[in-house]
Amino acid sequence: MAVYLNNKFIEDDQAFLHVSDLSIQRGYGIFDFLRTMDGAPLFMDDHLDRFYASADALHLPVKKSREELSPIIHELIKRSSLSEAGIRITLTGGYSTDSYQIAEPNLVITCNPVKISTQNDFEKGVSIITHEYQRELPHVKSINYLMAVWLQPLLKDKQADDLLYHRNNIITEFPRSNVFIVTAGNKLVTPARNVLKGITRKNILSLAKEIAQVEERDIIVEELSDAPEVFLTATTKKIMPVIRINNKMVGNGKPGPVTTKLYKKFLELERSAHHLVSR
Amino acid sequence: MAVYLNNKFIEDDQAFLHVSDLSIQRGYGIFDFLRTMDGAPLFMDDHLDRFYASADALHLPVKKSREELSPIIHELIKRSSLSEAGIRITLTGGYSTDSYQIAEPNLVITCNPVKISTQNDFEKGVSIITHEYQRELPHVKSINYLMAVWLQPLLKDKQADDLLYHRNNIITEFPRSNVFIVTAGNKLVTPARNVLKGITRKNILSLAKEIAQVEERDIIVEELSDAPEVFLTATTKKIMPVIRINNKMVGNGKPGPVTTKLYKKFLELERSAHHLVSR
Repeated sequence: MAVYLNNKFIEDDQAFLHVSDLSIQRGYGIFDFLRTMDGAPLFMDDHLDRFYASADALHLPVKKSREELSPIIHELIKRSSLSEAGIRITLTGGYSTDSYQIAEPNLVITCNPVKISTQNDFEKGVSIITHEYQRELPHVKSINYLMAVWLQPLLKDKQADDLLYHRNNIITEFPRSNVFIVTAGNKLVTPARNVLKGITRKNILSLAKEIAQVEERDIIVEELSDAPEVFLTATTKKIMPVIRINNKMVGNGKPGPVTTKLYKKFLELERSAHHLVSR
Repeated sequence: MAVYLNNKFIEDDQAFLHVSDLSIQRGYGIFDFLRTMDGAPLFMDDHLDRFYASADALHLPVKKSREELSPIIHELIKRSSLSEAGIRITLTGGYSTDSYQIAEPNLVITCNPVKISTQNDFEKGVSIITHEYQRELPHVKSINYLMAVWLQPLLKDKQADDLLYHRNNIITEFPRSNVFIVTAGNKLVTPARNVLKGITRKNILSLAKEIAQVEERDIIVEELSDAPEVFLTATTKKIMPVIRINNKMVGNGKPGPVTTKLYKKFLELERSAHHLVSR
Protein backbone atom coordinates (compact mmCIF):
# COMPACT_ATOMS: atom_id res chain seq x y z
CA MET A 1 0.00 0.00 0.00
CA ALA A 2 1.30 3.47 -0.84
CA VAL A 3 1.92 6.13 1.82
CA TYR A 4 2.69 9.79 1.30
CA LEU A 5 5.39 11.01 3.68
CA ASN A 6 6.26 14.73 3.70
CA ASN A 7 7.16 15.08 0.04
CA LYS A 8 6.87 11.74 -1.64
CA PHE A 9 5.00 8.56 -2.24
CA ILE A 10 6.62 5.55 -0.59
CA GLU A 11 5.62 2.00 0.15
CA ASP A 12 3.96 1.26 3.50
CA ASP A 13 6.92 -0.84 4.63
CA GLN A 14 9.11 2.26 4.26
CA ALA A 15 6.82 4.56 6.26
CA PHE A 16 8.74 5.27 9.43
CA LEU A 17 9.26 8.26 11.69
CA HIS A 18 12.35 8.85 13.77
CA VAL A 19 11.84 8.24 17.49
CA SER A 20 12.52 11.93 18.20
CA ASP A 21 9.16 12.79 16.62
CA LEU A 22 6.97 14.71 19.04
CA SER A 23 4.12 12.20 18.52
CA ILE A 24 6.31 9.45 19.98
CA GLN A 25 7.93 11.70 22.59
CA ARG A 26 4.88 13.68 23.74
CA GLY A 27 1.82 12.35 21.93
CA TYR A 28 1.67 15.62 20.03
CA GLY A 29 -0.01 15.75 16.65
CA ILE A 30 -3.31 16.04 14.78
CA PHE A 31 -5.02 14.09 12.04
CA ASP A 32 -8.14 13.77 10.01
CA PHE A 33 -9.80 10.76 8.53
CA LEU A 34 -12.01 10.44 5.48
CA ARG A 35 -13.20 7.56 3.41
CA THR A 36 -13.75 6.72 -0.20
CA MET A 37 -16.83 5.30 -1.89
CA ASP A 38 -16.21 3.41 -5.13
CA GLY A 39 -12.77 4.99 -5.24
CA ALA A 40 -13.86 8.60 -4.73
CA PRO A 41 -13.15 10.57 -1.50
CA LEU A 42 -16.28 11.63 0.38
CA PHE A 43 -16.72 15.11 1.88
CA MET A 44 -13.01 15.80 1.39
CA ASP A 45 -13.40 19.58 1.52
CA ASP A 46 -14.95 19.37 4.98
CA HIS A 47 -12.23 17.02 6.20
CA LEU A 48 -9.49 19.26 4.80
CA ASP A 49 -11.11 22.29 6.44
CA ARG A 50 -10.98 20.52 9.77
CA PHE A 51 -7.44 19.23 9.17
CA TYR A 52 -6.12 22.76 8.65
CA ALA A 53 -8.13 24.06 11.62
CA SER A 54 -6.71 21.35 13.91
CA ALA A 55 -3.16 22.02 12.70
CA ASP A 56 -3.59 25.72 13.29
CA ALA A 57 -5.03 25.18 16.77
CA LEU A 58 -1.99 23.08 17.78
CA HIS A 59 0.50 25.60 16.28
CA LEU A 60 1.54 23.14 13.56
CA PRO A 61 2.30 24.77 10.22
CA VAL A 62 1.18 22.79 7.15
CA LYS A 63 3.59 23.22 4.25
CA LYS A 64 1.15 21.86 1.71
CA SER A 65 -1.81 23.92 0.57
CA ARG A 66 -5.15 22.22 0.03
CA GLU A 67 -4.60 22.63 -3.69
CA GLU A 68 -1.52 20.45 -3.22
CA LEU A 69 -3.06 17.96 -0.78
CA SER A 70 -6.11 17.18 -2.86
CA PRO A 71 -4.27 15.64 -5.88
CA ILE A 72 -1.94 13.76 -3.51
CA ILE A 73 -4.97 12.13 -1.87
CA HIS A 74 -6.47 11.28 -5.27
CA GLU A 75 -3.17 9.75 -6.36
CA LEU A 76 -2.96 7.67 -3.15
CA ILE A 77 -6.46 6.33 -3.75
CA LYS A 78 -5.50 5.44 -7.31
CA ARG A 79 -2.33 3.67 -6.20
CA SER A 80 -4.22 1.74 -3.50
CA SER A 81 -6.68 0.26 -6.02
CA LEU A 82 -9.20 0.10 -3.16
CA SER A 83 -12.79 1.05 -3.77
CA GLU A 84 -13.53 1.48 -0.04
CA ALA A 85 -10.55 3.04 1.73
CA GLY A 86 -9.85 5.05 4.85
CA ILE A 87 -7.54 8.00 4.32
CA ARG A 88 -5.70 9.28 7.32
CA ILE A 89 -3.87 12.59 7.11
CA THR A 90 -1.58 12.91 10.12
CA LEU A 91 0.56 15.89 11.09
CA THR A 92 2.96 15.39 14.00
CA GLY A 93 5.01 17.80 16.12
CA GLY A 94 8.13 16.87 14.12
CA TYR A 95 11.67 15.88 15.02
CA SER A 96 12.16 17.87 18.20
CA THR A 97 15.74 18.42 19.34
CA ASP A 98 14.74 18.70 23.01
CA SER A 99 11.74 16.33 22.83
CA TYR A 100 9.47 19.18 23.93
CA GLN A 101 9.44 22.07 21.48
CA ILE A 102 7.52 21.81 18.21
CA ALA A 103 9.78 21.29 15.19
CA GLU A 104 8.96 21.06 11.48
CA PRO A 105 5.87 18.83 11.37
CA ASN A 106 5.90 15.47 9.64
CA LEU A 107 3.02 14.86 7.26
CA VAL A 108 1.89 11.26 6.81
CA ILE A 109 -1.00 10.30 4.54
CA THR A 110 -2.08 6.67 4.47
CA CYS A 111 -4.77 4.92 2.47
CA ASN A 112 -5.88 1.61 3.92
CA PRO A 113 -8.77 -0.84 3.69
CA VAL A 114 -11.57 0.17 6.03
CA LYS A 115 -14.65 -1.48 7.45
CA ILE A 116 -17.74 0.56 6.60
CA SER A 117 -20.95 -0.07 8.54
CA THR A 118 -23.59 -1.87 6.55
CA GLN A 119 -27.38 -1.90 6.57
CA ASN A 120 -27.07 -5.04 8.67
CA ASP A 121 -24.88 -3.23 11.23
CA PHE A 122 -27.50 -0.47 11.30
CA GLU A 123 -30.28 -2.94 12.07
CA LYS A 124 -28.29 -4.42 14.96
CA GLY A 125 -27.24 -1.09 16.44
CA VAL A 126 -24.73 -0.69 19.25
CA SER A 127 -24.64 -1.13 22.99
CA ILE A 128 -22.85 1.62 24.93
CA ILE A 129 -21.74 2.58 28.40
CA THR A 130 -21.25 6.08 29.79
CA HIS A 131 -17.97 7.22 31.30
CA GLU A 132 -16.98 10.41 33.09
CA TYR A 133 -14.30 12.16 31.06
CA GLN A 134 -13.77 15.28 28.99
CA ARG A 135 -11.40 15.21 26.01
CA GLU A 136 -8.58 17.75 26.15
CA LEU A 137 -8.91 20.51 23.55
CA PRO A 138 -12.11 18.86 22.28
CA HIS A 139 -12.50 21.06 19.20
CA VAL A 140 -9.18 19.73 17.87
CA LYS A 141 -8.76 16.31 16.27
CA SER A 142 -5.52 15.64 18.16
CA ILE A 143 -3.94 12.19 18.31
CA ASN A 144 -4.56 12.01 22.07
CA TYR A 145 -6.70 8.90 22.64
CA LEU A 146 -5.01 7.91 25.89
CA MET A 147 -8.32 7.48 27.71
CA ALA A 148 -10.15 5.76 24.85
CA VAL A 149 -7.45 3.15 24.30
CA TRP A 150 -6.95 2.72 28.03
CA LEU A 151 -10.67 1.99 28.51
CA GLN A 152 -10.83 -0.80 25.92
CA PRO A 153 -10.64 -3.57 28.56
CA LEU A 154 -13.56 -1.94 30.42
CA LEU A 155 -15.64 -2.00 27.23
CA LYS A 156 -14.85 -5.67 26.76
CA ASP A 157 -15.67 -6.37 30.38
CA LYS A 158 -19.05 -4.63 30.06
CA GLN A 159 -19.66 -6.30 26.68
CA ALA A 160 -20.33 -2.87 25.18
CA ASP A 161 -19.41 -1.54 21.73
CA ASP A 162 -18.55 2.02 22.64
CA LEU A 163 -18.43 4.56 25.45
CA LEU A 164 -20.05 7.94 25.72
CA TYR A 165 -18.20 10.60 27.69
CA HIS A 166 -19.90 12.97 30.11
CA ARG A 167 -18.72 15.57 32.60
CA ASN A 168 -20.69 17.48 35.20
CA ASN A 169 -23.68 15.36 34.20
CA ILE A 170 -23.58 16.66 30.62
CA ILE A 171 -22.93 14.21 27.79
CA THR A 172 -20.46 15.20 25.09
CA GLU A 173 -19.26 12.59 22.58
CA PHE A 174 -17.84 9.14 21.96
CA PRO A 175 -14.07 8.80 21.46
CA ARG A 176 -14.59 8.74 17.68
CA SER A 177 -18.26 9.59 17.13
CA ASN A 178 -20.85 12.26 17.89
CA VAL A 179 -24.09 11.58 19.72
CA PHE A 180 -27.66 12.58 18.87
CA ILE A 181 -30.89 11.99 20.74
CA VAL A 182 -34.49 12.22 19.57
CA THR A 183 -36.70 13.60 22.34
CA ALA A 184 -40.24 12.47 23.19
CA GLY A 185 -41.35 15.68 21.45
CA ASN A 186 -39.57 14.49 18.28
CA LYS A 187 -36.79 17.05 18.47
CA LEU A 188 -33.34 16.06 17.28
CA VAL A 189 -30.71 17.23 19.79
CA THR A 190 -26.92 17.02 19.82
CA PRO A 191 -24.34 18.53 22.20
CA ALA A 192 -23.18 21.99 21.18
CA ARG A 193 -19.93 22.33 23.10
CA ASN A 194 -16.85 20.46 24.30
CA VAL A 195 -17.05 18.11 21.32
CA LEU A 196 -15.25 17.56 18.07
CA LYS A 197 -17.61 18.66 15.36
CA GLY A 198 -17.87 15.65 13.08
CA ILE A 199 -18.41 15.88 9.34
CA THR A 200 -21.22 13.31 9.52
CA ARG A 201 -22.68 15.33 12.42
CA LYS A 202 -22.69 18.40 10.20
CA ASN A 203 -24.38 16.51 7.36
CA ILE A 204 -27.01 15.05 9.68
CA LEU A 205 -27.81 18.47 11.12
CA SER A 206 -28.34 19.75 7.64
CA LEU A 207 -30.47 16.79 6.50
CA ALA A 208 -32.53 16.71 9.69
CA LYS A 209 -34.05 20.11 9.11
CA GLU A 210 -36.56 18.56 6.70
CA ILE A 211 -37.59 15.92 9.25
CA ALA A 212 -37.49 17.34 12.76
CA GLN A 213 -36.82 20.40 14.83
CA VAL A 214 -33.09 20.51 15.53
CA GLU A 215 -31.32 21.79 18.65
CA GLU A 216 -27.62 22.06 19.48
CA ARG A 217 -27.42 22.34 23.25
CA ASP A 218 -26.32 20.59 26.46
CA ILE A 219 -27.89 17.19 27.13
CA ILE A 220 -27.88 15.87 30.68
CA VAL A 221 -27.39 12.18 31.42
CA GLU A 222 -31.01 11.70 32.50
CA GLU A 223 -32.32 13.13 29.23
CA LEU A 224 -30.14 10.64 27.38
CA SER A 225 -31.51 7.76 29.46
CA ASP A 226 -35.10 8.80 28.79
CA ALA A 227 -34.69 9.47 25.06
CA PRO A 228 -36.82 7.25 22.77
CA GLU A 229 -34.06 7.30 20.12
CA VAL A 230 -30.31 7.71 20.42
CA PHE A 231 -27.75 7.34 17.67
CA LEU A 232 -24.12 8.08 16.92
CA THR A 233 -22.53 9.45 13.78
CA ALA A 234 -19.04 8.86 12.39
CA THR A 235 -17.24 8.65 9.06
CA THR A 236 -17.06 4.85 8.92
CA LYS A 237 -20.19 4.19 10.98
CA LYS A 238 -22.43 6.70 9.20
CA ILE A 239 -25.46 6.57 11.52
CA MET A 240 -25.56 3.83 14.12
CA PRO A 241 -28.58 3.38 16.44
CA VAL A 242 -27.73 3.07 20.13
CA ILE A 243 -29.97 0.30 21.39
CA ARG A 244 -28.62 -0.16 24.90
CA ILE A 245 -27.13 2.34 27.38
CA ASN A 246 -25.50 0.96 30.53
CA ASN A 247 -27.48 -2.21 29.89
CA LYS A 248 -30.85 -0.44 29.74
CA MET A 249 -32.74 -0.71 26.46
CA VAL A 250 -33.35 2.43 24.38
CA GLY A 251 -36.95 2.57 23.10
CA ASN A 252 -37.95 -0.92 21.97
CA GLY A 253 -34.34 -1.89 21.18
CA LYS A 254 -34.78 -1.35 17.43
CA PRO A 255 -33.69 1.58 15.24
CA GLY A 256 -36.33 4.29 15.76
CA PRO A 257 -38.33 6.02 13.00
CA VAL A 258 -36.42 9.34 13.01
CA THR A 259 -33.06 7.52 13.07
CA THR A 260 -34.15 5.31 10.18
CA LYS A 261 -35.41 8.26 8.12
CA LEU A 262 -32.13 10.10 8.66
CA TYR A 263 -30.13 7.02 7.77
CA LYS A 264 -31.92 6.72 4.42
CA LYS A 265 -31.43 10.40 3.72
CA PHE A 266 -27.75 10.13 4.62
CA LEU A 267 -27.22 7.20 2.22
CA GLU A 268 -28.79 9.34 -0.51
CA LEU A 269 -26.50 12.25 0.39
CA GLU A 270 -23.48 9.95 0.18
CA ARG A 271 -24.53 8.78 -3.25
CA SER A 272 -25.00 12.31 -4.55
CA ALA A 273 -21.73 13.46 -2.96
CA HIS A 274 -20.01 10.52 -4.58
CA HIS A 275 -21.66 11.31 -7.89
CA LEU A 276 -20.33 14.88 -7.67
CA VAL A 277 -16.68 13.94 -7.06
CA SER A 278 -16.57 10.96 -9.41
CA ARG A 279 -18.07 12.70 -12.43
CA MET B 1 24.66 8.12 19.63
CA ALA B 2 23.47 4.58 20.32
CA VAL B 3 19.81 3.66 20.76
CA TYR B 4 18.36 0.40 21.99
CA LEU B 5 15.29 -0.62 19.95
CA ASN B 6 13.33 -3.70 21.06
CA ASN B 7 16.17 -6.20 20.91
CA LYS B 8 19.28 -4.48 19.71
CA PHE B 9 21.63 -1.57 19.82
CA ILE B 10 21.42 0.61 16.73
CA GLU B 11 22.67 4.03 15.74
CA ASP B 12 20.40 7.01 16.40
CA ASP B 13 20.00 7.66 12.67
CA GLN B 14 18.47 4.17 12.35
CA ALA B 15 16.00 4.61 15.22
CA PHE B 16 12.63 4.73 13.53
CA LEU B 17 9.14 3.44 14.29
CA HIS B 18 6.57 2.55 11.66
CA VAL B 19 3.75 5.08 11.33
CA SER B 20 1.25 2.44 12.48
CA ASP B 21 2.71 2.66 16.00
CA LEU B 22 0.03 3.55 18.53
CA SER B 23 2.15 6.48 19.80
CA ILE B 24 1.87 8.12 16.37
CA GLN B 25 -1.71 7.00 15.78
CA ARG B 26 -3.19 7.63 19.24
CA GLY B 27 -0.51 9.19 21.44
CA TYR B 28 -0.45 5.96 23.43
CA GLY B 29 2.68 5.00 25.35
CA ILE B 30 4.65 5.48 28.55
CA PHE B 31 8.21 6.36 29.41
CA ASP B 32 10.60 7.09 32.19
CA PHE B 33 13.60 9.34 32.31
CA LEU B 34 16.72 9.14 34.44
CA ARG B 35 20.08 10.78 34.29
CA THR B 36 23.68 9.89 34.78
CA MET B 37 26.31 11.56 36.94
CA ASP B 38 29.89 11.02 35.88
CA GLY B 39 28.70 8.16 33.71
CA ALA B 40 26.67 6.34 36.38
CA PRO B 41 22.84 6.17 36.35
CA LEU B 42 21.18 7.85 39.33
CA PHE B 43 18.27 6.30 41.24
CA MET B 44 17.79 3.76 38.46
CA ASP B 45 15.90 1.28 40.64
CA ASP B 46 13.26 3.89 41.44
CA HIS B 47 12.92 4.85 37.78
CA LEU B 48 12.62 1.23 36.71
CA ASP B 49 10.00 0.64 39.41
CA ARG B 50 7.97 3.49 38.00
CA PHE B 51 8.56 2.41 34.39
CA TYR B 52 7.09 -1.03 35.07
CA ALA B 53 4.23 0.47 37.07
CA SER B 54 3.33 2.87 34.23
CA ALA B 55 3.51 0.07 31.64
CA ASP B 56 1.27 -2.11 33.77
CA ALA B 57 -1.24 0.70 34.32
CA LEU B 58 -1.56 1.23 30.55
CA HIS B 59 -1.88 -2.53 29.83
CA LEU B 60 1.49 -2.60 28.05
CA PRO B 61 3.46 -5.80 28.61
CA VAL B 62 7.24 -5.35 28.99
CA LYS B 63 9.14 -8.25 27.47
CA LYS B 64 12.38 -7.34 29.21
CA SER B 65 12.83 -7.95 32.93
CA ARG B 66 14.63 -5.36 35.04
CA GLU B 67 17.55 -7.78 35.23
CA GLU B 68 17.73 -7.46 31.43
CA LEU B 69 17.08 -3.71 31.23
CA SER B 70 19.72 -2.69 33.72
CA PRO B 71 22.78 -3.97 31.76
CA ILE B 72 21.29 -2.56 28.52
CA ILE B 73 21.15 0.88 30.12
CA HIS B 74 24.70 0.56 31.41
CA GLU B 75 25.86 -0.50 27.94
CA LEU B 76 24.08 2.50 26.33
CA ILE B 77 25.79 4.86 28.76
CA LYS B 78 29.14 3.27 27.93
CA ARG B 79 28.54 3.57 24.20
CA SER B 80 27.47 7.20 24.53
CA SER B 81 30.73 8.24 26.23
CA LEU B 82 28.72 10.98 27.97
CA SER B 83 29.36 11.74 31.60
CA GLU B 84 26.06 13.61 32.00
CA ALA B 85 23.31 11.93 29.98
CA GLY B 86 19.55 11.67 29.99
CA ILE B 87 18.21 8.17 29.52
CA ARG B 88 14.72 7.82 28.19
CA ILE B 89 13.01 4.44 28.28
CA THR B 90 9.90 4.59 26.08
CA LEU B 91 7.30 1.88 25.62
CA THR B 92 4.66 2.51 22.95
CA GLY B 93 1.37 0.83 22.11
CA GLY B 94 3.04 -1.01 19.22
CA TYR B 95 2.19 -1.57 15.56
CA SER B 96 -1.56 -1.67 15.74
CA THR B 97 -3.37 -3.25 12.79
CA ASP B 98 -6.52 -1.15 13.33
CA SER B 99 -4.74 1.93 14.77
CA TYR B 100 -6.74 1.52 17.98
CA GLN B 101 -6.02 -1.77 19.74
CA ILE B 102 -2.79 -2.26 21.67
CA ALA B 103 -0.29 -4.47 19.85
CA GLU B 104 3.15 -5.73 20.89
CA PRO B 105 4.79 -2.68 22.46
CA ASN B 106 7.91 -1.12 20.98
CA LEU B 107 10.71 -0.46 23.47
CA VAL B 108 13.03 2.45 22.72
CA ILE B 109 15.88 3.43 25.01
CA THR B 110 17.87 6.53 24.15
CA CYS B 111 20.86 8.13 25.84
CA ASN B 112 21.39 11.77 24.98
CA PRO B 113 23.23 14.83 26.29
CA VAL B 114 21.17 16.60 28.92
CA LYS B 115 21.22 20.01 30.57
CA ILE B 116 21.42 19.60 34.34
CA SER B 117 20.55 22.57 36.54
CA THR B 118 23.54 24.18 38.16
CA GLN B 119 24.14 26.06 41.40
CA ASN B 120 23.80 29.22 39.33
CA ASP B 121 20.37 28.11 38.03
CA PHE B 122 19.38 27.42 41.64
CA GLU B 123 20.34 30.94 42.72
CA LYS B 124 18.27 32.47 39.91
CA GLY B 125 15.21 30.27 40.47
CA VAL B 126 12.22 30.16 38.15
CA SER B 127 9.21 32.28 37.41
CA ILE B 128 5.93 30.38 36.97
CA ILE B 129 2.30 30.85 36.06
CA THR B 130 -0.65 28.79 37.22
CA HIS B 131 -3.02 27.12 34.77
CA GLU B 132 -6.26 25.21 35.26
CA TYR B 133 -5.78 21.65 34.09
CA GLN B 134 -5.60 18.11 35.42
CA ARG B 135 -3.36 15.56 33.72
CA GLU B 136 -5.15 12.42 32.54
CA LEU B 137 -4.20 9.29 34.52
CA PRO B 138 -1.81 11.41 36.60
CA HIS B 139 -0.17 8.50 38.41
CA VAL B 140 1.10 7.19 35.05
CA LYS B 141 4.07 8.66 33.19
CA SER B 142 2.27 8.50 29.85
CA ILE B 143 3.58 10.30 26.77
CA ASN B 144 0.52 12.58 26.73
CA TYR B 145 1.88 16.14 26.97
CA LEU B 146 -0.70 17.65 24.63
CA MET B 147 -1.54 20.46 27.04
CA ALA B 148 2.05 21.17 28.12
CA VAL B 149 3.36 21.48 24.57
CA TRP B 150 0.28 23.39 23.46
CA LEU B 151 0.79 25.95 26.24
CA GLN B 152 4.41 26.78 25.33
CA PRO B 153 3.43 29.98 23.45
CA LEU B 154 1.50 31.13 26.55
CA LEU B 155 4.60 30.61 28.70
CA LYS B 156 6.66 32.65 26.27
CA ASP B 157 4.03 35.34 26.18
CA LYS B 158 3.96 35.57 29.98
CA GLN B 159 7.78 35.39 30.12
CA ALA B 160 7.51 32.51 32.57
CA ASP B 161 9.68 29.40 32.86
CA ASP B 162 7.03 26.87 33.77
CA LEU B 163 3.38 26.37 34.57
CA LEU B 164 1.75 24.85 37.60
CA TYR B 165 -1.52 23.00 37.08
CA HIS B 166 -4.49 23.31 39.41
CA ARG B 167 -8.06 22.09 39.38
CA ASN B 168 -10.95 22.96 41.69
CA ASN B 169 -8.60 25.46 43.35
CA ILE B 170 -6.16 22.70 44.36
CA ILE B 171 -2.64 22.75 42.92
CA THR B 172 -1.17 19.51 41.62
CA GLU B 173 2.07 19.55 39.62
CA PHE B 174 4.06 21.06 36.77
CA PRO B 175 4.08 19.22 33.41
CA ARG B 176 7.44 17.65 34.29
CA SER B 177 8.06 18.56 37.96
CA ASN B 178 6.52 18.26 41.40
CA VAL B 179 5.77 21.23 43.62
CA PHE B 180 6.56 21.83 47.30
CA ILE B 181 5.73 24.74 49.55
CA VAL B 182 7.19 25.75 52.91
CA THR B 183 4.48 27.20 55.13
CA ALA B 184 4.84 30.14 57.51
CA GLY B 185 4.95 27.52 60.28
CA ASN B 186 7.98 25.94 58.55
CA LYS B 187 6.15 22.84 57.41
CA LEU B 188 7.11 21.29 54.10
CA VAL B 189 3.99 20.41 52.10
CA THR B 190 3.47 18.72 48.73
CA PRO B 191 0.29 17.56 46.97
CA ALA B 192 -0.68 13.99 47.81
CA ARG B 193 -3.01 13.12 44.95
CA ASN B 194 -3.60 13.58 41.22
CA VAL B 195 0.14 13.90 40.60
CA LEU B 196 2.92 11.81 39.17
CA LYS B 197 5.08 10.83 42.10
CA GLY B 198 8.54 11.99 41.10
CA ILE B 199 11.73 10.24 42.15
CA THR B 200 13.26 13.55 43.28
CA ARG B 201 10.01 14.24 45.18
CA LYS B 202 10.43 10.93 46.97
CA ASN B 203 14.04 11.71 47.84
CA ILE B 204 13.18 15.18 49.10
CA LEU B 205 10.38 13.82 51.29
CA SER B 206 12.86 11.43 52.81
CA LEU B 207 15.60 14.04 53.33
CA ALA B 208 13.21 16.67 54.66
CA LYS B 209 12.30 14.65 57.73
CA GLU B 210 15.49 15.81 59.42
CA ILE B 211 14.74 19.47 58.69
CA ALA B 212 11.02 20.14 58.86
CA GLN B 213 7.65 18.63 59.53
CA VAL B 214 6.42 17.08 56.30
CA GLU B 215 2.85 16.85 55.02
CA GLU B 216 1.43 15.28 51.87
CA ARG B 217 -1.98 16.82 51.36
CA ASP B 218 -4.06 19.14 49.15
CA ILE B 219 -2.76 22.69 48.75
CA ILE B 220 -5.18 25.38 47.66
CA VAL B 221 -4.08 28.17 45.31
CA GLU B 222 -4.24 30.82 48.06
CA GLU B 223 -1.91 28.80 50.29
CA LEU B 224 0.56 28.63 47.42
CA SER B 225 0.38 32.40 46.91
CA ASP B 226 1.01 33.06 50.60
CA ALA B 227 3.84 30.54 51.04
CA PRO B 228 7.20 32.05 52.05
CA GLU B 229 9.03 29.37 50.04
CA VAL B 230 8.01 27.39 46.98
CA PHE B 231 10.14 25.04 44.91
CA LEU B 232 9.89 22.39 42.27
CA THR B 233 11.67 19.07 41.97
CA ALA B 234 12.61 17.11 38.85
CA THR B 235 15.29 14.75 37.61
CA THR B 236 17.25 17.32 35.60
CA LYS B 237 16.28 20.35 37.70
CA LYS B 238 16.94 18.75 41.10
CA ILE B 239 15.47 21.46 43.34
CA MET B 240 14.56 24.77 41.75
CA PRO B 241 13.26 27.69 43.83
CA VAL B 242 10.11 29.33 42.49
CA ILE B 243 10.71 33.05 42.90
CA ARG B 244 7.70 34.44 41.05
CA ILE B 245 4.12 33.14 40.70
CA ASN B 246 1.83 34.92 38.23
CA ASN B 247 4.23 37.85 38.45
CA LYS B 248 4.01 38.12 42.26
CA MET B 249 7.27 37.63 44.15
CA VAL B 250 7.62 34.62 46.48
CA GLY B 251 9.20 35.64 49.81
CA ASN B 252 12.04 38.08 49.07
CA GLY B 253 12.63 36.63 45.60
CA LYS B 254 15.67 34.60 46.70
CA PRO B 255 15.95 30.90 47.50
CA GLY B 256 14.60 30.48 51.06
CA PRO B 257 16.45 28.84 53.98
CA VAL B 258 14.53 25.52 53.95
CA THR B 259 14.84 25.23 50.16
CA THR B 260 18.58 25.93 50.36
CA LYS B 261 19.11 23.40 53.16
CA LEU B 262 17.24 20.74 51.19
CA TYR B 263 19.20 21.56 48.06
CA LYS B 264 22.49 20.98 49.86
CA LYS B 265 21.24 17.74 51.35
CA PHE B 266 20.04 16.61 47.93
CA LEU B 267 23.42 17.27 46.32
CA GLU B 268 24.99 15.14 49.08
CA LEU B 269 22.45 12.37 48.42
CA GLU B 270 23.28 12.46 44.71
CA ARG B 271 26.96 12.13 45.49
CA SER B 272 26.45 9.17 47.77
CA ALA B 273 24.01 7.52 45.34
CA HIS B 274 26.58 8.03 42.60
CA HIS B 275 29.30 6.63 44.83
CA LEU B 276 27.18 3.52 45.43
CA VAL B 277 26.55 2.71 41.76
CA SER B 278 30.00 3.66 40.46
CA ARG B 279 32.01 1.65 42.98
